[in-house]
Order: sequence, then structure tokens, then C-alpha cells
Amino acid sequence: MQHPHDTSAGMAAPPLLALYRDVRARSLDYCAPLALEDYGLQAMPETSPPKWHLAHTTWFFETFLLQPFLPGYAPFNTAFRSLFNSYYNSVGQPFSRARRGLLSRPTLDEVHAWRVTVDRAMARLLTTPHPQHTEIRRRLLIGAHHEMQHQELFFTDIQYSLSCNPLRPAYLPLHHTWLAETAAPPLAWQALPGGVYQIGAEAVQTSAFDFAFDNELPRHRTFLEPFEIAARPISNGEWLAFMADGGYHNPELWLADGWAACQAQQWQAPLYWEHSPHTGWQSFTLYGMQPIDPARPVCHISGYEADAFARWASARLPTEQEWETAVSQLPHNSEHAQFIDSGHYHPQPVRASQWFGSVWEWTASSYAPYPGYRPPAGALGEYNGKFMCNQLVLRGGSCVSDRRQLRPSYRNFFYPADRWQYSGLRLARSAAPH
Amino acid sequence: MQHPHDTSAGMAAPPLLALYRDVRARSLDYCAPLALEDYGLQAMPETSPPKWHLAHTTWFFETFLLQPFLPGYAPFNTAFRSLFNSYYNSVGQPFSRARRGLLSRPTLDEVHAWRVTVDRAMARLLTTPHPQHTEIRRRLLIGAHHEMQHQELFFTDIQYSLSCNPLRPAYLPLHHTWLAETAAPPLAWQALPGGVYQIGAEAVQTSAFDFAFDNELPRHRTFLEPFEIAARPISNGEWLAFMADGGYHNPELWLADGWAACQAQQWQAPLYWEHSPHTGWQSFTLYGMQPIDPARPVCHISGYEADAFARWASARLPTEQEWETAVSQLPHNSEHAQFIDSGHYHPQPVRASQWFGSVWEWTASSYAPYPGYRPPAGALGEYNGKFMCNQLVLRGGSCVSDRRQLRPSYRNFFYPADRWQYSGLRLARSAAPH
Amino acid sequence: MQHPHDTSAGMAAPPLLALYRDVRARSLDYCAPLALEDYGLQAMPETSPPKWHLAHTTWFFETFLLQPFLPGYAPFNTAFRSLFNSYYNSVGQPFSRARRGLLSRPTLDEVHAWRVTVDRAMARLLTTPHPQHTEIRRRLLIGAHHEMQHQELFFTDIQYSLSCNPLRPAYLPLHHTWLAETAAPPLAWQALPGGVYQIGAEAVQTSAFDFAFDNELPRHRTFLEPFEIAARPISNGEWLAFMADGGYHNPELWLADGWAACQAQQWQAPLYWEHSPHTGWQSFTLYGMQPIDPARPVCHISGYEADAFARWASARLPTEQEWETAVSQLPHNSEHAQFIDSGHYHPQPVRASQWFGSVWEWTASSYAPYPGYRPPAGALGEYNGKFMCNQLVLRGGSCVSDRRQLRPSYRNFFYPADRWQYSGLRLARSAAPH
Amino acid sequence: MQHPHDTSAGMAAPPLLALYRDVRARSLDYCAPLALEDYGLQAMPETSPPKWHLAHTTWFFETFLLQPFLPGYAPFNTAFRSLFNSYYNSVGQPFSRARRGLLSRPTLDEVHAWRVTVDRAMARLLTTPHPQHTEIRRRLLIGAHHEMQHQELFFTDIQYSLSCNPLRPAYLPLHHTWLAETAAPPLAWQALPGGVYQIGAEAVQTSAFDFAFDNELPRHRTFLEPFEIAARPISNGEWLAFMADGGYHNPELWLADGWAACQAQQWQAPLYWEHSPHTGWQSFTLYGMQPIDPARPVCHISGYEADAFARWASARLPTEQEWETAVSQLPHNSEHAQFIDSGHYHPQPVRASQWFGSVWEWTASSYAPYPGYRPPAGALGEYNGKFMCNQLVLRGGSCVSDRRQLRPSYRNFFYPADRWQYSGLRLARSAAPH
Repeated sequence: MQHPHDTSAGMAAPPLLALYRDVRARSLDYCAPLALEDYGLQAMPETSPPKWHLAHTTWFFETFLLQPFLPGYAPFNTAFRSLFNSYYNSVGQPFSRARRGLLSRPTLDEVHAWRVTVDRAMARLLTTPHPQHTEIRRRLLIGAHHEMQHQELFFTDIQYSLSCNPLRPAYLPLHHTWLAETAAPPLAWQALPGGVYQIGAEAVQTSAFDFAFDNELPRHRTFLEPFEIAARPISNGEWLAFMADGGYHNPELWLADGWAACQAQQWQAPLYWEHSPHTGWQSFTLYGMQPIDPARPVCHISGYEADAFARWASARLPTEQEWETAVSQLPHNSEHAQFIDSGHYHPQPVRASQWFGSVWEWTASSYAPYPGYRPPAGALGEYNGKFMCNQLVLRGGSCVSDRRQLRPSYRNFFYPADRWQYSGLRLARSAAPH
Repeated sequence: MQHPHDTSAGMAAPPLLALYRDVRARSLDYCAPLALEDYGLQAMPETSPPKWHLAHTTWFFETFLLQPFLPGYAPFNTAFRSLFNSYYNSVGQPFSRARRGLLSRPTLDEVHAWRVTVDRAMARLLTTPHPQHTEIRRRLLIGAHHEMQHQELFFTDIQYSLSCNPLRPAYLPLHHTWLAETAAPPLAWQALPGGVYQIGAEAVQTSAFDFAFDNELPRHRTFLEPFEIAARPISNGEWLAFMADGGYHNPELWLADGWAACQAQQWQAPLYWEHSPHTGWQSFTLYGMQPIDPARPVCHISGYEADAFARWASARLPTEQEWETAVSQLPHNSEHAQFIDSGHYHPQPVRASQWFGSVWEWTASSYAPYPGYRPPAGALGEYNGKFMCNQLVLRGGSCVSDRRQLRPSYRNFFYPADRWQYSGLRLARSAAPH
Repeated sequence: MQHPHDTSAGMAAPPLLALYRDVRARSLDYCAPLALEDYGLQAMPETSPPKWHLAHTTWFFETFLLQPFLPGYAPFNTAFRSLFNSYYNSVGQPFSRARRGLLSRPTLDEVHAWRVTVDRAMARLLTTPHPQHTEIRRRLLIGAHHEMQHQELFFTDIQYSLSCNPLRPAYLPLHHTWLAETAAPPLAWQALPGGVYQIGAEAVQTSAFDFAFDNELPRHRTFLEPFEIAARPISNGEWLAFMADGGYHNPELWLADGWAACQAQQWQAPLYWEHSPHTGWQSFTLYGMQPIDPARPVCHISGYEADAFARWASARLPTEQEWETAVSQLPHNSEHAQFIDSGHYHPQPVRASQWFGSVWEWTASSYAPYPGYRPPAGALGEYNGKFMCNQLVLRGGSCVSDRRQLRPSYRNFFYPADRWQYSGLRLARSAAPH
Repeated sequence: MQHPHDTSAGMAAPPLLALYRDVRARSLDYCAPLALEDYGLQAMPETSPPKWHLAHTTWFFETFLLQPFLPGYAPFNTAFRSLFNSYYNSVGQPFSRARRGLLSRPTLDEVHAWRVTVDRAMARLLTTPHPQHTEIRRRLLIGAHHEMQHQELFFTDIQYSLSCNPLRPAYLPLHHTWLAETAAPPLAWQALPGGVYQIGAEAVQTSAFDFAFDNELPRHRTFLEPFEIAARPISNGEWLAFMADGGYHNPELWLADGWAACQAQQWQAPLYWEHSPHTGWQSFTLYGMQPIDPARPVCHISGYEADAFARWASARLPTEQEWETAVSQLPHNSEHAQFIDSGHYHPQPVRASQWFGSVWEWTASSYAPYPGYRPPAGALGEYNGKFMCNQLVLRGGSCVSDRRQLRPSYRNFFYPADRWQYSGLRLARSAAPH
């Protein structure tokens, strides 16, 4: 994928600038299949329009890098400071999140022009010696990973928006066979002994590109009782068995808040699933409506549904400490993991041993600060810490994640009722007492 | 205004076709100043996106004229039948009104192509002898006036949508002087004697182009007690006096439901008005933010505000019977009335005697069927009758109305809390008892 | 019915005092079947607890009669001034209407004590010569009729509250046969010629007890086209036919706002109706659950349902002008009308000619001021005028109305979606054009 | 406190029966100061009326003990089975929680009669040998502790309900001096080393009365990094300093969800606090409005406010593991703890070392199952497990808790926005890295 504006891509650029250019170009590449009319869509407050993602990621570099560090840089448009601020109270009053779809102006052309302006200025900043180069590098890495995160949200948000259109327009046409030839491999369990383990990211990076968000720090000890964990996520076939057994109609399987959500929103199946007598179960995907493939991992389920399934299966969700320990202790090959570079915009059939990619996995862990956690100083201190309440941690990454993000310590987080991510589940169970 | 697609405009067309072409072209003309991104905007459920207006008016002709009357006509896209149905239950389940802004597809290009297809087919229909030509003419006139109504809504809806953008983009740049040189002329009163009057439209039209909606029928007698009515609408200057006297803070001036709305929505001034110490009162217009001109009629007020003002002024709103009688009995010159053909997209300074145009005038009358009213047979029976509850009648037309609609019997109607139309008020009072 | 506190009832009292004592005693009589726990019930914001009705009617006399006119009278408890103010903004901030059920204090004993105190003071006021005796008489009559209105609301409110209890407690046990032996008599129509009629109450009363509310004034002329009106209200049997014909499922029968309400609230039958296979249709009444009697008039329907039924029956609702004119012009015997003095707390089987009592009848008329209407000066000006928007007029009175209120000009009013009153309907139709 | 119905209290009863009688009698004792009208109050869905608490606790014994284990026992009223079921889906459909205040029937007399009937039957059950006596003992202990929990809720619920009455009625009159003579003692910190600790209750009880809820099990190991914890809760004086420093107006101190709640609900101070120029800060207590005493612990704060305060104080909330470890490792004297048996119905001035009683302390821990947690079989499996999401754990007990509940492992839990409990906070901080 080659972004047309990025005429300098062929030249040798400093490594940080090359990273920057690569990330920036992908945001535009991912938008390529859209109609201009799609760029403004916001079908629920939790999602953002594609144009807003393009603008907000640009705002990040302008606000946190160009304005403080590039001498003489003047903002492209001072009104954008609040318009494309997401939630940084210390930067000023953000524009109402639920109303981002109403921002027909600036037009896409104007946002593209802003991106070009910022990209050129960033190139100057990154190719000129600077006394604060360490802080610049720190923020550049945050900004690059921040934009990768928004690229993933771009996919999940546009899928949700397109799903609300009765015409069910596809993001991309389907050019490959959809249904797998074989069922998902049997579910195997891995046992781990109890004891004190270490999780979290190392604070000291070993190369200029090593990166971890503050919420992965500090690396710390945790005590785990012996447990077993499944070697792969749950498949659609297994989910259909849960449904056939009345899973959505039995309150004893559900958390109280989950059952309330299930009834209030009349959940009968994962998000995007639809049933008709002549087609059977289908779901809306980035390739439009497609049949449910039993061999693929289930996705677009809430944390509540994941929890209910686990109870139905006489198991439970793993804690994030168990998940990270298992990934660190057990042999696995993350090179096979399906991320956005796979070229497939939907989870592929599940493998017998699968630990990364394809679908995010709900854990039983509330998103909370690690022992000794300290948010960074300054406005970027708002990046993660203030969300550490009411959400659950998800691990592993999905088919629309960037491979560069998915270190074992990476923590994603959503509210337990959220369903529009590529979210699935993996089972765990406590070892039987002796 | 000449619409570029309408290449045949110079040729001699049958009169009905000429009317059709004129109306259709205007819908596109009015959209000309928009950015493509603006076509999808829907900032509240009551408003519709420009693209939806373009599509729905096309749907009307396809559904009610081409499909029943043009042999061999196949719908452009069968999915559009429900997608662009507004509220005709007998045509099928309409798409959710509040979610029209999510229809990024069909794209504007597709809607334009639909319009061209329908326009060509309509030209065939209107230039070919047909055994049901009377019914075709009847529906064509309804369709043309229906599209004029949507043209007015296009203006009020886009004004509302643009107002929600903190950049406050103007629909059009302002090329003329805004503030009037003189104040509004003094308010004069006209007295009418009591007695039996006739109102409503004549059922028998005298020319092929005479038109009235079913809700203006039948012409009927009404008894009016003697009354007086103001010769012009209320001005901004008069409204500022109401505000200065605490009009928005005195519940004794308000209807109970009005006071509840005023408090719940925190009304302090008409919609779009904003105050800052250094600019004074300004309001958002189709020309962007502009100062409040005391000489212009007040607009963007709810029926509740109109009623409260009237009580403050020791007067009341006229009934629609009084309004129509006054217009019929008193001399006036509607040629000076400011409609959309004036080229001014905001009410101009009020004249000493002004009965039509510039601003709609709230009346005290609930929108109700006239004695002997019968809705038309078939789906078009849903056009008016089913809205005859909970709304108030407005009379007179506004700066964005089409002149061809504003016969004296024309009845507009909105909920008393609605404010996004160009709605103002005129005072009336009962004659003192002898 | 004899109220135990009213020990002086046997003595000769001045006529106004006798009226006062009679009305006051009835409020307590009507509460006699309640458990103390019932006095605080408020099952929706529109209803009020019995204790609140007892207190508010007392507040009325204390506020509008004793405080201004009885020298030396000190309020029983100054905190009650706002606590039991219903909606008089000029008296001060009323306590939140929706939270009246939270007022466990004052206790019922305290409210009873307040009533005794006020009643004794009122006796002094009404038995002592006073220079403002005309105004006192005017207000006393308003207060007495106000309390009669609250007595009716007491019945409809407690019915609603008890209906929310799954035990379905009856207000009273049933001691008579419920189902009528015969069906409702056939529906006959009465024709009235067009012309100018007079409606409304006479401003000049002919006796000291004549009374009309301000909203019935002034008497005025109105022009009516010729019309026909049914001689009795619609029966349950006729309503069942409407239901059997899909009346609740056909949007073409409904006003747009009515259909929205029908769907949002999932109306399938009148309020309180329930169906089970082994009991058929039953409804909750003041006598508990009872079978639907086809011979009784339908009640507990909204104005929207009434309107839909009329359309289904190829008729319409009468306007209030038609209703009052018909009652005034046609012979009828209101002595047979079923009011609260009948001893039956549910509409009795409908008679062939029935114009008053049993059920309120929805009209097509929005509640609006009559021509020349002027609200009274002072706080009592808030009594009626400020509700003249968004509501429909009902006429005729119900089985729980006081006979003394039901002069032909009496106007009741509720929102078209309201269903908890004893509200039914009568049909009308325009005379066929010649 | 001696309950009048409990005439047998002086006789020697088997220990379990004595416990049962003691607990049952207290429920009635606590209601003694109420007016009958207070028993039905429910001012928000989260609270329950006193009568409902009396009935539901009775339902518990009837449903889980008498029906399964007492031969020949017939339910007092079969309709009560769903009416007073709180949330046990496996027992049938519970009555709507938010509408408990509408249950005027059964009357209080009927509920008292039910209690007497159940108490007599329980006495039979507990004084007769039974083959399932172990299960009966298990359930009896749950039922007794369940009723203690509802006794605490009785206090917090009635406080909330009475606070909504503008008369501000006191639950009890105040007979003692309110303001402390001295300020709160200085805040001291206690340090604990890192390492593996054990928390949770022992599964094997050492006496017939040892009790722990399932959510306190199993006892398990946990690794803690070194930390420091305050020796007492935060005082009102310290909270006033937070407020004076703009704590309620600085979003940087707040979790994102907390800031949203703070703004939506316009928090300016703890629940029940009110300020007026002439009284200063006061708060509504069970003794009515009383001045804020700086020496008492702050209470009626949400978890969000607690978290914001901790951030403002450069500290954090302890985790529940830290709290329980500290209580287990540090010397403390819980005999001084203020529980309901103190006779004080409001937190007393804070002591220099205070670990139990007076106010619940929000922790940073989400309420989640302990490793190896298994809910009990049967309906009682719904007691705790299904609430393990979205709530935070509170520790320590309050002035209205029963002393018999407050073992170190006891876990209370509420949503972070809840404020109507006696909830305060204690600070913790991570040991500085070396």
C-alpha cells in the first residue's frame, strides 16, 4: 500500500520519520474504499467518523509535538484545537463526542490539507537536531501507536456505521472463498502451576523502537493459583451450541448487569448476526452480509456474553494476569497471528493453538492500575489512567490490529456491554483442588 | 436560476411539464452552495439531510406517478421504496426518521442519477396522452407543491445543521448591508366586525394550475366575534423589549406546557440568538453569525414564546380564521411579500403593512380538520389528515417559502415547541365589549 | 353518607356553609374504604396520593380564603404553603408533582387535623358578615367545585395506583350482579341543522349557587355546519368489534401521534383490560377484576383511540361546539345520568339516549380560550387558562363526577394520550353535502 | 432493645433459635420510630421501603427454609412468592424493583402477621431434630446475616427517603451534643512490606456460629508490593479542604466516568450536604439537619469522589487485598468500632487508629470472584456471584452495620456512583521505588 501524497517514501528517511510516514500513510490507505459520503458517518456516540479519525490523529501530532517543539510552527486552524480534541481536559474543552458526525466542515479536502501540512512539519522536526530529542522520540512513539489504535477503531466504527444502512454496503468486495472446509480443531487445555509470576512491560526499552503504554507499567509480581487455559478462542460453531442450548434465555448463566443488558437490548446472538429461514445465520462484515462460518472464532460479543458462555461451559474467563502469564510461559508462534497486514478483514478460521490476533479476548479483569502505576506528567497523563474504572481488559489483538502493537503486555479495554469490536473469548478454569 | 442538467428548459414544454421542470431544477439550485459533506447532515430527528430531501421528493414522483401510470416503468432501485418513504404506512415500513443522516449510501451521485431517470420518465408521462390524465394532473400538482415544501425545509434544516458546527459555516456569504437604517414602523391595528365569514379554499379550481391541499378544504362558514389584528408582525426590537422586561423568567406569562419547555430547554432568547459582551446579541443565519437587527421581524421562536409575548403585550395570537378573514377583507399587496424569489435568505425589515412572506406567523389555532373535511382516497390520504393533532397552525409563509404556495388559505403546522422554522408572530385582540 | 367529624351537619347552617360542609365531608367519605397505607400511593406523575388530595383542597381554602379574609388567621403550618401548592406560580414554588408520593409526613392524622382547623375557621368566615362577601362567595364556590374535581381525581388516581399492585386489591367489594342481561341498545343518530348557535355559560348567575368556571365564559356565537350525532356513547361490545377487526394494528386508522403512542406503549385494548384464555377479557375496576360487559360504555380509552375508533366507524368525534349544541337543542333527561351519587363506581349499561354521566366523552376540540376569554385577576387566574394548549376537551361527566358540576357548558380537558379517566366516546358525522 | 412480639426471649432457646429471634426482633425494633406512612417510602429504585425489607427477609426464611424443610408448611400467601422475591430468577419472576413503593397491600398489619407465622414455624423447625440439620444450619446462618444486611439497608434507605421530604423529618431526635470538641487526630501512615499474603475466609468454620459468605471464599494467596496505608479514614475537615481547593471543579483529579457523573449530577459536596450563608455547611442525618463536624469521618461519598480525593492527596485508594492484609497484620482494637449497637446513628469523631465501623471504606478493587470461587448450588447460588461486575468493594462496616458481620474478610460492594450508604475512604500509597 502506497499513499499517493507521500512522494518521499522512496528516499532514505531517518528511522523515526520512516515509522511516522508508514503509519500516517496507512490511515489514508485504509480509507481508500470509502465514498466521500462515508467519511462523516457516526452511528452511535462511541464511534467516530472516518474524517474525525484522520483529523484527530493529526491534531495529536500538532498539539503534542509541533506546537511545543517546532520553532515558529503556527497551528493550521486554531479552531481545530477543540474540535478535534478527544478527551484531554488539560488541552481545553473538547467538542461533544456524540456530535462528531455533524462536522461536515472542515471538508475532507481541508483535513487532507491539514495532514499534509502537519506531515511536512513533522518531517522537519524529525530531521533536525533538537535539544529535547528524547522527549520528542517518546511522544512520537506514542503518537504513532495512538494512530495505529485509531486505525483499528476506523475499521470497527465504519463497520458499525455501514451496518445501520439497510442497503448493507460492503467496505470491500469479497474475492475469496468464505466458508472453511473443515470445522474448528478440538479445544485443548494448557495447565500452569501456581506461583509468583511477573507481568507488565519492562520500563527500560532495549531499542529506540521498543514501546509500551504507561498502563502496561510497571513490571511487577503477581501470585497465581494453578489454572488451566484453552489453547485457542471459542469458535462460531461452539457459540451456536450455546445459543441452541438457550444461552440467551437462561438468567442463571448471566451476571445481573449482563442479564439486564441482554433483556434491555434484546440480544439473541452476537452483534451483526441475523437469521432468516432461507439463509440461516448470517452476519454483517466488512465484506457485507456473509454466512456464519462455524470454524471461525466468534466475535462481536460483549463481555457479558463471553462471561455467560464461560459459565455455560463450566469454565470462566481468564484474568489478564493468567492470560499474560500463559502467553509468556507457553510456546506459541505469533508470526501466524492474523493482524491487519494479513489482508483479511475478518477473523480467519481458528487454529488449534492461537494466542494472538484474529479476535480480542475478554478477560475477567477490570481495567485497573498496576501496583506502582504512575501516569506520565502533562497532558499525556490523561491518555490511559482516567479510564481505569468500569471497563474490562481484553488481550491478544484482532484481525484489524496493527502487528506492531501486540506485545504480550498490551492491554485493551472496553465496557462489558460493548460489542462493536472484534471481541471474542478464551476459556480458563481453576485447577481442581487436591 | 437555471439548473445545468435541465438542457431542455429552453424548448417549449407542456405547461405541467414546465412546472415540473422548474420545481425540480430549483431543488438542485438551492443545494449549489453546499459542500458534498453537507448533504448527509441531520442534527436532530425533526430535520432531514439535503440528500434525503432530494431523494424523497424523487421517490414521491416515482411512487405515486411513474409506478402506477407509466407503463413499463421499473423502479430505479427497489430498496429506495422504504428508504425514502417518509411516513406513508400504506406504502410500507418507512426507514427510521431519526437515522436518515446515516444513509451515506446511496451516494449523492446515485441520487442525482435517480433524479435524472425519474425526470426523463416524468417527461414521457406528461407528454403522452393518458386515459387517467385528470388523476395524473392532480398528483403532479401535489408532487410539485410537495417538493416546494421540501425546498423550504431544506433551508431550515441546513441552517439548523450548520448551526451545530462550532465553525459556524455560512450557507452563503453576505454581500449586502445587514443592519437597517431605520427602526420598524409603528404597529397599527385593523378592526374587523363580527359575523359569519367564509374561509378555506374553493374546491372547484378555475385553471389547471390552481391548487390547494386537502387540508384547506372545504370552504366553509365560521362565526367571528369582532376583533382587531396588527398590520404587521412583531419586530426584533419589540422582542428585545420583552426580554428586557423579564419575559423569559415570568411564569405568569406562559402556558403551563410552554413554561415547562422554556425551563427544560433553558430558553433565554429565540433559537440561534447568542449574546456576548463585545458583540451584543447576534444570531446564526444562512449568512453565518449576524447582529440582531431591531427592524426585522423576530423569527425562530416557538409557539409558546409567541403566546407568552402576546400575553405580555396584553394581546393574544389570532386564530387562523381571524387571520384568513383579515387577509381576505383588508387591502394588502402581496406582491411585496418576501419569498424565496427575493434573493434574500433572511427576513428583511418589516413593513408597516405586511401580511405575507418573511416569517410564518403562529396562530392560536390547533391544526384540525375543517368541517366536512375528507382526506383523499389512497395513500395520499396520509398527506395531511393524520397530523391534525397537537400542532398549531401557522400562516403567511416565510422568506424561504415558494410564492406559488402562499394562497390565503394555506395552512402550515408545527408543534408549539418547534423553533427551527422562520416562525414569528402577529398580535390580535378581542374587541372591547360595549 | 355522613362524615363523622361533621357533628354540626344536623344544625341549620347558612347555605354556603352547608355547601362547604357537604363537599368537605364527601372527601373523607370517599376515603373511608382505604387502608392507611393507600393514602400515600402515587403510581405515575399525573396522579396524586389520596392524602395529597385531602391536603391540597384544604390548602386551597386556607390560601385563597382564610389568609386573605379571616382576620387573625395564622397558617396551620407555613411549610404546607409550598408542599401542597399544585401549580400556582404566583403563590410560590410548588413541590415537585412527580414526588408527592414521597411525602410520608405530614401524616394522615396531621392532615386530618389541618382539615378540622380549616373547617372551623371557614365556618367562622362564612357565618360572620364581611365587607368582601361577594369575593368570598366567588372564591368559596370555586373552592367547592375545585374539591369536587379532586374527588373525581381521587377515584381515578386510586384506581390507577391499586391496579399497579399485582394483588389487585379492590377499592370496594362487589355486592351486585355485574353482567347486564341484555346488549346495549342500537345506536341512533340525531341530526341538527347548520347555523349560528350560542354556547358557553351565562356570565350573570341567577342564583347564589349558580357557578361556572372562567373557561366556560363568555357565552358566544358559533357557526356550525349541519351534523349528526349519536344518541349514546359507544359500548364495550362495539369496542370489541373494533379490536376484532384489527383496530389496534392498522395505522391508517390512527393519527400520526396516536399511532406513535399506540406502538410505544403497546396498546392492545383500553387501559386496565387484560385477556386470558380461561377468563376472556376482564378489566380492573374499583371492584377489582371484573369481566368486560358488552352493554356498558367503553371507558379508559385515550383520545387517540377514540379518534381511531371513529375513523374505523366512518364517523368522527364531535367538536365541543357540536356536543354542547346537541345537548342544548335535543330533548334529554339528565336526571337519569349516572354520577357519583348513583352508588355505582363503574359505568352502568348504556341507555338508548344518554348525554350525561357514566363516561366522559372525548371531543375533537383542542382546549382553547373562548372568544373574548379573560382569566380572573390574581392567583386564581392560573386556574384554567394556562392549560389551554395540547389538550382535548371532554364533555358530559362520568360515574365518579359530582352531579353539581355537570352543566352543559362544563369543559373537562386531558392530553390525548391520557387513559386513566373514565373516558369514552360518542360519534358524530358531517351531514352529507347536497 | 426488646421486641414486644418476642415474648419468649427470656426463655432458654437453642443457640440457633436464639440468634434467629435476636435478629428478627431487631428488624422490628429499628422500625419503631417510624410513622405508619413511612413504611411504604421508596425514593429511588435502589432503595426499598421499610415494609418491603420486613417482608423480603421473611420471604427468605419461608422460601429457603420452611417450604423445603418443614413438613406440612403452607405458604402464608402464595402471591408473596414473587411480590417479595428480590432477584432470585430461579425462584420465579420478581416484582419490579423500582415499584416496591406502590405495594400499599399487603398492609403492615398483614406483614407483621406473616412475620409472626414464619417465626413460629421457624421455632418449630429449629427445635425439632431434622435429617438435614446441617443444611438447615447453613441456610439459617445465611438468612440471619441476610436480615442483618437488610437492617443496614433499612437505615440508609429511610435516610434517603426522608431526605426527599422538604420537612426534613428526623428518624430520631438528637439528645446529645453534636459537634466534637477537638479536631480529628493527625493522619498517620502504616507501612507493610511486599510479599505473598493470605486473604479470604477460612472454609472450615471452627464453631457452629462462624459464618462467611461465599464471596469471601476461598482463602487464597496474593502478592502485594510494599505499600503504606493510613491509620484512619478521612475526616470531614479534610474533605472541606479538598472542596476549598476546587476538588469538584478540576477534571484532572477525576476518573473519566467519575467526572461525567460529577457533571451530570452536579455534585458539589457529599450527598446530603447543603450550604447556606447563615448556617454554613450542614447535612441531613438520621437526626435531621446537623452541622458538618470536621472531626467526624466524611461519608455519603461515591467511589468516584473517594478516588478524586485520593488523587488530590497524592495518594490512592487501597486495594481490598491491601486493606485486609493491613487489618490482619497491624494491631488494632475492633472493640471500639462503632456499629449499630453503639446507639449512635451517625459516624462518631474519628479515632487516630480506626479500622472498623463508623464508615465503609471504598477500595480500588472491582468486586470479582476470588481465585477458585464457586457459588453455592441451588437458588442461593444467586446470592453473590452474579453481582461481580461493575461494582467496587468496600470494607470495614459502618455505624449502622451489625457487629456480627464485620469479620476482616467481609466484602461489601456498590456501584462507584452510589452515595447513599455510609461510605467514606481511607488513603493508601505505593512505597517509593528504591
